[in-house]
Amino acid sequence: MPKDMSLAADATSTLESAAPTRLAAIDLGSNSFHLLVANYANERLQVVARLGEKVQLAAGLDDSGYLSEAAMQRALECLARFAPFLNDIEATNLRVVGTNALRDAHNSQDFIEQAEAQLGHPIEIIAGREEARLIYLGAAHALAENGRRLIVDIGGGSTEFIIGEAFEPRALESLRMGCVTYTSRYFPDGELSEKRMRRAELAALSELANIQRPYQRLGWDDPVGSSGTIKAAASVLHAYQDTPQEGVITRAGLKKLRERLIKCKSLDKVALDGLKPDRARVFPAGVAILGAIFEAFSLEKMRFADGALREGVLFDMAGRNTAEDTRAKTLTHLQRIYDVDTRQAENVARTARQLFDRVKGPWRLSEEQGHFLHWACLVHEIGLAISHSQFHRHGAYLLEHSDLAGFSRPEQRLLAHLVRAHRRKFPVKEWQALPPAQRDAGARLARLLRLAVLLNHSRPEEPPTVPGVTASEQTLTLTLPETREPTLLSTDLEQEQAYLQAAGFSLTLV
Amino acid sequence: MPKDMSLAADATSTLESAAPTRLAAIDLGSNSFHLLVANYANERLQVVARLGEKVQLAAGLDDSGYLSEAAMQRALECLARFAPFLNDIEATNLRVVGTNALRDAHNSQDFIEQAEAQLGHPIEIIAGREEARLIYLGAAHALAENGRRLIVDIGGGSTEFIIGEAFEPRALESLRMGCVTYTSRYFPDGELSEKRMRRAELAALSELANIQRPYQRLGWDDPVGSSGTIKAAASVLHAYQDTPQEGVITRAGLKKLRERLIKCKSLDKVALDGLKPDRARVFPAGVAILGAIFEAFSLEKMRFADGALREGVLFDMAGRNTAEDTRAKTLTHLQRIYDVDTRQAENVARTARQLFDRVKGPWRLSEEQGHFLHWACLVHEIGLAISHSQFHRHGAYLLEHSDLAGFSRPEQRLLAHLVRAHRRKFPVKEWQALPPAQRDAGARLARLLRLAVLLNHSRPEEPPTVPGVTASEQTLTLTLPETREPTLLSTDLEQEQAYLQAAGFSLTLV
Repeated sequence: MPKDMSLAADATSTLESAAPTRLAAIDLGSNSFHLLVANYANERLQVVARLGEKVQLAAGLDDSGYLSEAAMQRALECLARFAPFLNDIEATNLRVVGTNALRDAHNSQDFIEQAEAQLGHPIEIIAGREEARLIYLGAAHALAENGRRLIVDIGGGSTEFIIGEAFEPRALESLRMGCVTYTSRYFPDGELSEKRMRRAELAALSELANIQRPYQRLGWDDPVGSSGTIKAAASVLHAYQDTPQEGVITRAGLKKLRERLIKCKSLDKVALDGLKPDRARVFPAGVAILGAIFEAFSLEKMRFADGALREGVLFDMAGRNTAEDTRAKTLTHLQRIYDVDTRQAENVARTARQLFDRVKGPWRLSEEQGHFLHWACLVHEIGLAISHSQFHRHGAYLLEHSDLAGFSRPEQRLLAHLVRAHRRKFPVKEWQALPPAQRDAGARLARLLRLAVLLNHSRPEEPPTVPGVTASEQTLTLTLPETREPTLLSTDLEQEQAYLQAAGFSLTLV
Repeated sequence: MPKDMSLAADATSTLESAAPTRLAAIDLGSNSFHLLVANYANERLQVVARLGEKVQLAAGLDDSGYLSEAAMQRALECLARFAPFLNDIEATNLRVVGTNALRDAHNSQDFIEQAEAQLGHPIEIIAGREEARLIYLGAAHALAENGRRLIVDIGGGSTEFIIGEAFEPRALESLRMGCVTYTSRYFPDGELSEKRMRRAELAALSELANIQRPYQRLGWDDPVGSSGTIKAAASVLHAYQDTPQEGVITRAGLKKLRERLIKCKSLDKVALDGLKPDRARVFPAGVAILGAIFEAFSLEKMRFADGALREGVLFDMAGRNTAEDTRAKTLTHLQRIYDVDTRQAENVARTARQLFDRVKGPWRLSEEQGHFLHWACLVHEIGLAISHSQFHRHGAYLLEHSDLAGFSRPEQRLLAHLVRAHRRKFPVKEWQALPPAQRDAGARLARLLRLAVLLNHSRPEEPPTVPGVTASEQTLTLTLPETREPTLLSTDLEQEQAYLQAAGFSLTLV
């Protein structure tokens, strides 16, 4: 049974100068799932459809860290209701992102597979800081004012904190506290008391202590809150006239709200004017988190503003395939902080591009996959910053665990795997951890990367002339100029043949 | 039967102004084991005893990567011959370091345990770059000339390359090629031909390609070679008058030497004037590596100079416990490159020091262990540079895999484990990977570190007043000022009690 399904079908503009692109985003949050469909043209979004359902996926996360069957069932039913809105959206214009509950659950892969089958589209689990970046992107487009802002987004399983100016985030953090997880942790039996509220607030303060000082040092002019908890708090305050201005939460107003909640004595009896019944049970935990945020950052007031993760996803998607591609920027930043030899990286990338162009036909590689090969070339040596020994492993570790703006978790993992595989033995075992859809094409990209690295082994000023190369389903064939005695290249290639053969691949030298 | 045991017992000076300290180092190399005993005073070493034996530990490394029983036996017999020289050396003045063969062998732990039992002293396996740093330290003390030097040390299993000026290394690398491993890999049946030599040279060139350009960009005035292969090459060249100057290897001389070797046709028939018979079998592989180095770096000549790893170990030991302590410098460097909040690190360190002083008696912790606690405090947050999520794991990864000048591998691992354990669940499983000698004391240090971090959770300007703390064998008891309602600290401490209890430790709050 759909709860809180609100559908806003704005009229699509027919007078835009550029042909609009229809984009869609689904946000699989720990508390709610949201669908947003919009037309994008001239750097603006025109909303076509907006749906939301309180699936409470995280509520199904029992103590052992598993999503319950019931929660998965609710989630799949919700997606079934979203599906009809996606019929006319091209695959490249749809992104489905999962956040905290799907990051944490041990059995999220089970759910993801079912959900992907149902949607016919991959689901991307995004890291906390990437979530924060996208939330900021959405909020930045929604806010007219200038100046430095603090954006707070209290979700079901995590809360994001961003300080930024205009479209540039200055600090991004995601803390593991949310209204759904805190409800089960600090109000497990439904009792609602002063002591329970204080416990939840202290737990939130403990999380906040990690970011309190650095954030206060950066400072801000304008604290803004997005997400359901903050929207609901502003709504209740307005209903009781506990705020001087609609949409603004004050410290005094929040204190009154807290008292009103404690008087309810039980989660099941929470009923306040301005509060939707389906939010009631998780509202006290959300208010405890909000109270801790006011306390940690000494806030006097916070303004509610719409525009959150799903808006950010759409703007991000609209920005891809342009010079502004966030992912390219992220990798340039990585090159800088890990002091990469950029000439070598560029040379390897140029060689890889030539190899890619010659084999992309027979190997059925897409341009998007070509981007991954290019990106892997740019950062294949970052692990050298840790140690020369096993630097392919260190590079993979950094790529797997860093917060890489613009990359989803599976994209990040593919990049990490390519770098892991760029030299020495082919990591057959690690490769099995890739999703089946990435495995074969990924191995082909890795083989091209290895070859490009090897052809530039002596770190020349300019990349070398690429030898003749042809690809069949299993085999890559290189045609090399004849030499009477072994050279560095021929020695390297023979070693590479042995490495590939051990992994079940084939490289023929002519 | 001891081979090549040369004992040089220099007269010890009795006229030094400072009382000399007797220091000893044992270098468990892949080809030879060396013992060096010396008196240290006024920044100079006076050699007391010098022994060397060609144990060829790496020759026992069969294809599967295991040290053979025969090689281990030779090694233990050699150590038995070294032992009498160590009787009057204090434990803190002796270091036993293992290099490539012990880094690589799957069963090195077996050997290490037997060898430690025999010597009654721990063995430290050092990383390649640490080996390079120590070699440079030894060479820098031996060389009178100024200017920028390239130092090359061809060992049994690895070859180190250092560029430095005075006592400061500018580039440190260790490549996995050595005269013992290359002998078994490229001359497996003992045949010695032009083609075999070229294969070995190309393999070395392939390794060298990784460092060739950056090293040439740094440049040097004076190429210097240490170690047995280079000493032997200089000696043979001198014997045949193939060099203009004793102790100098020229490109032309090296070419003649290569031809002389190929004419021998078999490793077992290698016999040249100036070459000791027990070096003969591994000499061609060593010459192939040396030839590749001349080729890669376009060298015209190289000078042999004595003074290598074991001298470096002694100078390093002499420099510890002084303001120059290399390990402290290394951690300061880590703080800088990973942009650590140094005020917070210092505050945690000050709190940890106070806790340490109160419990070191009942917990039998040494000052050296106190250093580790202090160092862990300095770098416990480096993982934040990768990501806030799970940053204790990232910090541990960086500490485990970086080349940390001055730290042996077990020291590095202990530091990594402390940082790994500084927050969230206590890593019980990972703790089992520590050597038994470090496990219990290490866990106590980790508990103090956790407490120090927690007391500074809100990142105050100054570290807080440390609460009353007492320790019994298993339990740490904290006496806290009474509070009527829960505080951030009391919430954190209750959580900590739960974490510790799950790991089998106990924390009592009064």
